[in-house]
Amino acid sequence: MSPPSAFISSTSVVLLPSTFNGDRCTQRAKLTVLPRHPSTLHSRFRMSSGPSFSDHTPVAEKPKTLVRDDAKSDEESMRVRFEKMIRSAQDDICAQVEALDGCKFKEDAWVRETGGGGISRVLQNGNVFEKAGVNVSVVYGTMPPEAVAAASARGVTRDVGYKPGEPVPFFAAGISSVMHPRNPFAPTMHFNYRYFETDRGLWWFGGGTDLTPSYIFEEDAKHFHSVLKECCDRHDKEYFPKFKKWCDDYFLIKHRGERRGLGGIFFDDLNDKPADEIFKFSEDCASNVCSAYLPVVERRKDSEYTEEHKRWQQLRRARYVEYNLVYDRGTVFGLKTGGRIESILMSLPLTARWEYDHSPEPGSWEARSLEAMKNPKDWA
Amino acid sequence: MSPPSAFISSTSVVLLPSTFNGDRCTQRAKLTVLPRHPSTLHSRFRMSSGPSFSDHTPVAEKPKTLVRDDAKSDEESMRVRFEKMIRSAQDDICAQVEALDGCKFKEDAWVRETGGGGISRVLQNGNVFEKAGVNVSVVYGTMPPEAVAAASARGVTRDVGYKPGEPVPFFAAGISSVMHPRNPFAPTMHFNYRYFETDRGLWWFGGGTDLTPSYIFEEDAKHFHSVLKECCDRHDKEYFPKFKKWCDDYFLIKHRGERRGLGGIFFDDLNDKPADEIFKFSEDCASNVCSAYLPVVERRKDSEYTEEHKRWQQLRRARYVEYNLVYDRGTVFGLKTGGRIESILMSLPLTARWEYDHSPEPGSWEARSLEAMKNPKDWA
Repeated sequence: MSPPSAFISSTSVVLLPSTFNGDRCTQRAKLTVLPRHPSTLHSRFRMSSGPSFSDHTPVAEKPKTLVRDDAKSDEESMRVRFEKMIRSAQDDICAQVEALDGCKFKEDAWVRETGGGGISRVLQNGNVFEKAGVNVSVVYGTMPPEAVAAASARGVTRDVGYKPGEPVPFFAAGISSVMHPRNPFAPTMHFNYRYFETDRGLWWFGGGTDLTPSYIFEEDAKHFHSVLKECCDRHDKEYFPKFKKWCDDYFLIKHRGERRGLGGIFFDDLNDKPADEIFKFSEDCASNVCSAYLPVVERRKDSEYTEEHKRWQQLRRARYVEYNLVYDRGTVFGLKTGGRIESILMSLPLTARWEYDHSPEPGSWEARSLEAMKNPKDWA
Repeated sequence: MSPPSAFISSTSVVLLPSTFNGDRCTQRAKLTVLPRHPSTLHSRFRMSSGPSFSDHTPVAEKPKTLVRDDAKSDEESMRVRFEKMIRSAQDDICAQVEALDGCKFKEDAWVRETGGGGISRVLQNGNVFEKAGVNVSVVYGTMPPEAVAAASARGVTRDVGYKPGEPVPFFAAGISSVMHPRNPFAPTMHFNYRYFETDRGLWWFGGGTDLTPSYIFEEDAKHFHSVLKECCDRHDKEYFPKFKKWCDDYFLIKHRGERRGLGGIFFDDLNDKPADEIFKFSEDCASNVCSAYLPVVERRKDSEYTEEHKRWQQLRRARYVEYNLVYDRGTVFGLKTGGRIESILMSLPLTARWEYDHSPEPGSWEARSLEAMKNPKDWA
């Protein structure tokens, strides 16, 4: 760091989060391999497919496909189709977010020696978004015995043909995204759609889209849930009620007795219909993320707010961090299996705040918003 | 929240973290039972000793002892002696911190119906400390089979006389503390000393004291480690090298390949000497926390700093959050076994910051500080 241009006394320092990094939209592009210490990592969780834990080689030109050579020529295969779908969704969603924000996403692409790789796009310090990321990744790995056991605990068999405790080789492709707006009245949104295949031919889909406001606006929750419901209903009338409840159950911060947000839809281990049908459902969900979310942001992004509103947003963002680091299966799995750390933790907000024993004034907007996280209701 | 007294446009909002809660040292005292939703909590992790998961009843007067009636009359018992020691250490340490800061700790005391309880003291928004907490707690509980299994993985037998998978009833008493100063040049410090006994008479001690600076100052690291070394050496010449290495190994943020800080000492499962000797060692460690740490804070608390220094501190505080929520055994165990959430998460900094793919300029002070977290060295 260069010598400081101005000293500010410790009792009067003023932080300007919106300009903290200098001008907006000016993040420098970087393509560096993050240093890692493989020897210190837990050997049980090492990916058996890669030569080393830190095998994420940055590439200036992103490859046409991240699927391995042996499968990429089969245009009909779900591996190829799913990758194509999520990359197109990434392009489309990023373009719509850029149009709203005025700033551009910065892209990092990487490959792994033995196949697979990813494309991370992050818009940090934008006009509307404090931090928004849309990642695509293709992974060839082995599920550690713990992950197979966790799936079994959910009543799902993944180790067909493998000995108990034996790691299961898999292919996974997914798109995942979190968007944290600057304005405390504009909600955070997360979505993730993914496809898994084990080497012995088991496959399943998972995914979801959910909303996390700091302040509750009924019309926003209704709009968001209604778009998701319409999308589900086009494919199966049973989907929405089932996946809405699944979402409420999944995004529970157990130690707080609160949900992370106001929910949406969530599903996992989905393989009870022909793969092509579930693929089309996933595709439809991914293409409806923007129509569910962006009109809400559009409506709130320029609302006036006070320091107290921002403070409440920061306290709620800390709950987002608690959920993601303690409970989120994708995050914990990624951290422990050698995923690209910066892409995984892109989901965390730019800033968060933990005050000891904070609780909102009874009856306040903050208290009502919190109440809605504790007692999910039907919005659609 | 009352109607905002002033609106600030979303593009020019200025946060003043140091006065964000109004005047310093004015946190209101609160004694409320935090609402919890026991039905949503994972039943495997429920404490078998308490009638409900949220059994932390605030008390205005803290009891003379938190040890159960059946043992409290035995002044010679380690349960009673250890509680006395940590409560006296809490008083002493808080008094020294208050003398340095000028602000007072706020105290919350609670009891549990079936015995045990705690005293949390938090100083938030002080002159020197952004957030400092010193907690004492006495717990009667059962270790879930997972915790017994984790101990076994470390080569420790805790389930003597119990069936495999059967929860093990235990008594635990401990003091734990984290102090996060405001000034980015003043380091964070954590310490924790604890005593465990299972109902069938197994016992062990654990603890440690460690330093987490954002910016490295060799003289600070040397002073801190030297005080700990002298303290260890008074009891056993083998302690310091062993516990220093244990600390470096324990506070590893595996997914980053970095330590949380510059280390100190850490030990667990200690029972290979007469209990009285280990008790005296723990007591000596607890009484040396202030002499190891406060002179360093004294030296740095009024240093001038810039926004960039504060930003680096915030990025490092995010790593502190990552470690505590993902790896710290005490935190994860507490969250999953119905500990008092606000006391457990008191260790988190007031504010933290996650920027996508941040890395310090090569050769900068920030880079050298980070390097020291990656490659521990001998400071004492």
